[in-house]
Amino acid sequence: MTNISINSERLLGRIHMLGQIGRDAEGKLIRLAASSAEKNARDHLVELFRQAELQVAVDQIGNIFGIWPADGQTANPVLLGSHIDTVIDAGIYDGSYGVLAGLEIIESLKAANFIPHRPVAVVAFTNEEGVRYMPDMMGSLVFAGGFSIEEALATVGTDGSILGEALKQIGYAGSPLPELGNPFAYIELHIEQGPVLEGAGITIGAVQNLQGISWQQITIEGVANHAGTTPMAMRRDAGYVAARINTFLHDWATGSETPTVATVGSIRFEPNAINVIPSRATFTVDLRDPGEERLKLIENDLSDFLKALEKTEQVAISTKRLARFEPVVFDRQIVELVEQAASKRGLSSIRMTSGAGHDAQMVARLCPAAMIFVPSHGGVSHSPREYTPAADLIAGANVLLDVVVKLCGREQEITF
Amino acid sequence: MTNISINSERLLGRIHMLGQIGRDAEGKLIRLAASSAEKNARDHLVELFRQAELQVAVDQIGNIFGIWPADGQTANPVLLGSHIDTVIDAGIYDGSYGVLAGLEIIESLKAANFIPHRPVAVVAFTNEEGVRYMPDMMGSLVFAGGFSIEEALATVGTDGSILGEALKQIGYAGSPLPELGNPFAYIELHIEQGPVLEGAGITIGAVQNLQGISWQQITIEGVANHAGTTPMAMRRDAGYVAARINTFLHDWATGSETPTVATVGSIRFEPNAINVIPSRATFTVDLRDPGEERLKLIENDLSDFLKALEKTEQVAISTKRLARFEPVVFDRQIVELVEQAASKRGLSSIRMTSGAGHDAQMVARLCPAAMIFVPSHGGVSHSPREYTPAADLIAGANVLLDVVVKLCGREQEITF
Repeated sequence: MTNISINSERLLGRIHMLGQIGRDAEGKLIRLAASSAEKNARDHLVELFRQAELQVAVDQIGNIFGIWPADGQTANPVLLGSHIDTVIDAGIYDGSYGVLAGLEIIESLKAANFIPHRPVAVVAFTNEEGVRYMPDMMGSLVFAGGFSIEEALATVGTDGSILGEALKQIGYAGSPLPELGNPFAYIELHIEQGPVLEGAGITIGAVQNLQGISWQQITIEGVANHAGTTPMAMRRDAGYVAARINTFLHDWATGSETPTVATVGSIRFEPNAINVIPSRATFTVDLRDPGEERLKLIENDLSDFLKALEKTEQVAISTKRLARFEPVVFDRQIVELVEQAASKRGLSSIRMTSGAGHDAQMVARLCPAAMIFVPSHGGVSHSPREYTPAADLIAGANVLLDVVVKLCGREQEITF
Repeated sequence: MTNISINSERLLGRIHMLGQIGRDAEGKLIRLAASSAEKNARDHLVELFRQAELQVAVDQIGNIFGIWPADGQTANPVLLGSHIDTVIDAGIYDGSYGVLAGLEIIESLKAANFIPHRPVAVVAFTNEEGVRYMPDMMGSLVFAGGFSIEEALATVGTDGSILGEALKQIGYAGSPLPELGNPFAYIELHIEQGPVLEGAGITIGAVQNLQGISWQQITIEGVANHAGTTPMAMRRDAGYVAARINTFLHDWATGSETPTVATVGSIRFEPNAINVIPSRATFTVDLRDPGEERLKLIENDLSDFLKALEKTEQVAISTKRLARFEPVVFDRQIVELVEQAASKRGLSSIRMTSGAGHDAQMVARLCPAAMIFVPSHGGVSHSPREYTPAADLIAGANVLLDVVVKLCGREQEITF
């Protein structure tokens, strides 16, 4: 076991420096995928890779790799990373932390004259957030072979732009990277973006799985009538039916034995007037559970409930699937390595489920993968109020460093 | 009893003619109060009054009167009427029917050489709809002394215009009308704008009262958090709380022994994203009941429910009163005259409650008042699909004619 640790000041300084790139006139952080603001962050990252004497490679979807080749070794690399694109009005930790920590670990290992048994690489995946181009986690999905490069590059953005063209414009339309090889393992260090670790007073989350996600849009078609003259019994109130579905899902998830979550995050009534019974309610449903069977169960129960409401409330209900990901189970050996590393550093840890989607879930199709979480203050993310204490950021990076040493060191060979 | 009836073709023709005035380029009917489109309708109405040899008078708020003076009589007039302003994309019956039927009755009585015991007048009240200027029913409210003329004329419209100026521009800023005198009675013939009469297969609604109205806006302040990473027990979901209130009100009204109605017609979530728990939900509540005590009861129960939700759901709830009208009870004698007239004409009738607000509720402060309803197909109103069969329009006007004969004829003196 090594006693190498990261250079904390360097890591924290870089997180804050990268967090200044892509501020708009009001100071909001906005680095949408393949935008000029994100180009500046990419250029900055590539410069850091070069300073660290890493091989820089960009693939066709614009994923940026910084590769530390092992002397004379061509083995498959241990891959670390995350993304540097952001949502609108973002915080500075989401994504950037995992990328910069990956770089930090390589630099710290190099500085300590550590000799890896296999290459170590760090990656910034393109378009994880999916704000400008859908779907999200696109760069890692393409990397994992789950989405064709042709289709991905042809994606039309919310602003009408084409991703392939946008990547060319910013100079990040790269080439196939057959020389990189399949990763030996992928580990993503990330802020939790939820309240669990902080609430439990735990520093390290050893992420053992990732919730399955079911997104759909539901439209209720009722009848617009006068709010004063239409007796309750003669109504077909689309807004009321939407409310029934919201409380049904909330009660189902709250009563679930598994950590199911259900959210109605957006809604629209038509005509949306104070004295008119809504003729149409359109809203989104976000369901998540770490077990595919449970996710299917709530989906089916919802579907049955909609059928029942169509009869009792005399409305027409249509649903549109927006996204569906099966749960992902991360690699047990890596999860254990994370726990052991935390323990050796005297850090508390718990096994946990990722409630959010991450690039790791895509890369898990390709190689053993896992994630490490550190606490998010107040559970807040996708907001300027996103915050993780410095001590936790440092602890997470050191745990990742120890896991990397285990995976590519000479003293102990891990096989999957 | 007379056996006079209206000229059906004349009334129906005029309803359709007036319904062509104020069409926009797409053919939508839009006659907002004191607009140039409404000026054209006013000019048309005044011309009809003149052709019928009525005295035309316009008061300070722009209410237009067509007066048929009784020979040598200065007694208080029987007043008929409604309004000719419309909502955006309106139907042709709402308001116009009552005004044109009033004129039709006077002309039919004159043609039959009927000699009234007291003057009969027809009025088109200004700004009943309240789309351009708030509050609605403004002309009748000013006429009834419930709103000062100075304040009313200073009202600023949704388009930034001032009502007093707009009335001057279209030539309908009139003068005080001390010579008109308090009405002896006011009767407003109107389409039901609800589904009750059609649903019951009844032609004439003898409107005995008008629901009290309570409008408020409710804002729920929760906390925006990630829809995937925030366990159900740690949520402060403003959207869910809004749904709970919607179903609470719906269930309350549905279970009410009185004809309470409750509607959540408009809603807005913030940030309104599929994967973010809503931090804020803002929605409107429309409560109506013909009894003031019942209206207060649902208001109080709602208030208690909000307080309970603040504790159980850990949200902050604020309410803003938007409008509040006490229920109005119409004059029992006129309601009975309506029933008797319907019966003598072989028409079915029921006593009913008006769920919508009408000028009659304002004039009821001034004199005995009541309304007559005819069926609205599908209960639809404020829409181009607004429709009442010709036979019902004719029936309603004939019933009103008979009531007018009772109120101003020589054969039987009614006293209130």
